Amino acid sequence: MPKVVDHAARRAELAQALWRVVERDGVDAASVRSVAAEAGWSPSALRHYFTTQTELLAFAVEHVVEQGAARIRALDVGGPGVGPVLRLLEESLPLDLARRREAELWLLLAARTVTDDAATATLRTVDSGLRGLAEWSVALLAERGLLDPALDAGVEADRLHALLDGLAIHVVMRPAAVTPERARAVLAAHVADLAPPVDPGERPAPDAG
Amino acid sequence: MPKVVDHAARRAELAQALWRVVERDGVDAASVRSVAAEAGWSPSALRHYFTTQTELLAFAVEHVVEQGAARIRALDVGGPGVGPVLRLLEESLPLDLARRREAELWLLLAARTVTDDAATATLRTVDSGLRGLAEWSVALLAERGLLDPALDAGVEADRLHALLDGLAIHVVMRPAAVTPERARAVLAAHVADLAPPVDPGERPAPDAG
Repeated sequence: MPKVVDHAARRAELAQALWRVVERDGVDAASVRSVAAEAGWSPSALRHYFTTQTELLAFAVEHVVEQGAARIRALDVGGPGVGPVLRLLEESLPLDLARRREAELWLLLAARTVTDDAATATLRTVDSGLRGLAEWSVALLAERGLLDPALDAGVEADRLHALLDGLAIHVVMRPAAVTPERARAVLAAHVADLAPPVDPGERPAPDAG
Repeated sequence: MPKVVDHAARRAELAQALWRVVERDGVDAASVRSVAAEAGWSPSALRHYFTTQTELLAFAVEHVVEQGAARIRALDVGGPGVGPVLRLLEESLPLDLARRREAELWLLLAARTVTDDAATATLRTVDSGLRGLAEWSVALLAERGLLDPALDAGVEADRLHALLDGLAIHVVMRPAAVTPERARAVLAAHVADLAPPVDPGERPAPDAG
């Protein structure tokens, strides 16, 4: 079905153009007109793909989520202790400019959910990605015998998910107070609470089972 | 200075009208036109107070923050254990329709900070209110000898603040998954982590000092 392939390839081309505009000029610079200019398309050709600002925004958010998921899939989660889980979670935080722009796009789309059902549908997809990361992190800690056994895994996934979104917003909105270093320290404190350091004498040897 | 008093009284009147529109019809219904109609003013008289949608939104958010602060000041924080601190923190979550509308207004203004410095200035005030609540809660636990002494109070205030904002957003955006009951359970799990139950034999008698 070459037509479908073409369509997907052209959407990917647009996503790259959109992302270049956002990264270089900020999220408010992304409009049908500016993205068309960046891609070398006419605005009317672009309107074949996107008719509203919410559709453009939703498309951009889907694209950055795919970027984020690829980054996370590329990480090595092997190795002892909580370090690998911490790296996994840090990858979702806006600790550099590219991820900051991703978080800004997310926040813009999140606000549109208040008044626009199309935004809600896209954000649900994004959201289940981050929710999945939180669940996976708690499960990894549990599998490795690191999760505090007094904790409920479901509640902890919700708690971690809320913390990740709240921290991301604070890094974007309060950059002077919540620096990347501070965000890392807060996340590390949280993971230390989920998986308190165990007295080496009490920890079972990894190959004991 | 009667002119100043008049101005403040008229602003309060507008805030009430704005809030009635938001609570009844949703945040997207609040415009200079609809708020003027609700207050029985002409749109041009309203424009004497607000010229942009961001100004109207900022005013609404300031108003709901004052409402929230008054609710919190009215709470009794006396009594044993973590219960009083938990009630304090729950009061900031959007667990009913009025507080849900407050959170929606906050989210709309938060998204505007990405592109609008006027929104950033207002949100900084709001934000320092919730940050203050997080700091106060951690300080109350510490004063009462309930805070886990291994924790850093500054990091914990940041962590609690991020959790409160993240949970509020989830209650608004994912109401089916994060019900008021679930949000309360997540918050309770967090407070239990900050102030783990102590073996009664180990706890110093309150009047021991």
